[in-house]
Amino acid sequence: MQGLFIALEGPDGAGKSTQIQLLQEYLEKKGYEIIVTREPGGTVISEAVRQIILNKEYREMSEKTELLLYAAARAQLVEEIIRPALKAGKAVICDRFLESSVVYQGIARGLGVDTVYAVNDFALEGLRPQLTILLDLDAEEGLRRKKNQAELDRMEAEGLEFHQRVAEGYRFLADREKERIMRISATLPKEEIHAKIVLAIEERILNRYQI
Amino acid sequence: MQGLFIALEGPDGAGKSTQIQLLQEYLEKKGYEIIVTREPGGTVISEAVRQIILNKEYREMSEKTELLLYAAARAQLVEEIIRPALKAGKAVICDRFLESSVVYQGIARGLGVDTVYAVNDFALEGLRPQLTILLDLDAEEGLRRKKNQAELDRMEAEGLEFHQRVAEGYRFLADREKERIMRISATLPKEEIHAKIVLAIEERILNRYQI
Repeated sequence: MQGLFIALEGPDGAGKSTQIQLLQEYLEKKGYEIIVTREPGGTVISEAVRQIILNKEYREMSEKTELLLYAAARAQLVEEIIRPALKAGKAVICDRFLESSVVYQGIARGLGVDTVYAVNDFALEGLRPQLTILLDLDAEEGLRRKKNQAELDRMEAEGLEFHQRVAEGYRFLADREKERIMRISATLPKEEIHAKIVLAIEERILNRYQI
Repeated sequence: MQGLFIALEGPDGAGKSTQIQLLQEYLEKKGYEIIVTREPGGTVISEAVRQIILNKEYREMSEKTELLLYAAARAQLVEEIIRPALKAGKAVICDRFLESSVVYQGIARGLGVDTVYAVNDFALEGLRPQLTILLDLDAEEGLRRKKNQAELDRMEAEGLEFHQRVAEGYRFLADREKERIMRISATLPKEEIHAKIVLAIEERILNRYQI
């Protein structure tokens, strides 16, 4: 069995967790052993880095520091978890991955798309998910869905304008990289979103390997 | 008054702290306001990153993660402390800086000198100390001087062979970049080392600005 590597992307509140659960059930039925992981985090070291990245007290964190910390957490996750899992033929589902950095640090923070890909190409040795699903949601709706959450982390606590740049950034990337990134409206019913994801995985990945 | 930026480098046990103290006293007499800082660390965020980097439990840390964490801590230190201090005409003395990463991660870990400079050029926007002092010491002697220390951190706990690559790496760099890096034997009496450092700073930096 070939390994499978799928990332879910989108603003906070877009429903990534729900879709990951549905996708996990579907891939288990297909016979895959599944690794579900999240970013930043997923290993002991990466979770320690996450505590720094999302700490609301650290308002003085520079944009470059933020990018490098995300890349450090991601490098550890890839080396320790993702590469071994793929090598063993497992399916890896990642709640956020490379494109989160491209959008949040590269576009919303303004460090530049090419810069973020360059730093991450070093961190990941060029590894990319076979398919990235973008759950597309307007910033206003994302914030509305999050507003009952007790406490927001350092990234979530950014204002509307920042989250608008995130939503626009995701659309820009999905338009630019149609082969790798599939955009689905997060306002559709969850079963409909799931069906689209399954179809994309079957058409774009699984059936390609069949003779 | 122009800002002044000096870094002290060398293996653990080379006597950097002693020389930093002597240098601080000398520059204070010259009328400088002084910032002494250390790496990794020197800001609240960078010290939090330091706790991860040097944690002995994290034996599984990947070499790329290590490099990116050092770069993240350094980016924060530069943005928050070093650039503002230099702009205000202060003298910054740094206990380890860029060349530590080049030697420890680039040479001793084997990630490559050019790779480490590239990642750090992003982190630092090309900032370099005006002068880097290498306190040159054989690995065996460095370890001997450290052996009474109660507990060694994750980097110090590496074996002799690693520390030999560090000592050799520093010499390689100092030979390659004679203009920026001045090599002084750490086995000389401390007053003699200090006199050489003062002479280098006067000849290479301070007198250049005089008319």
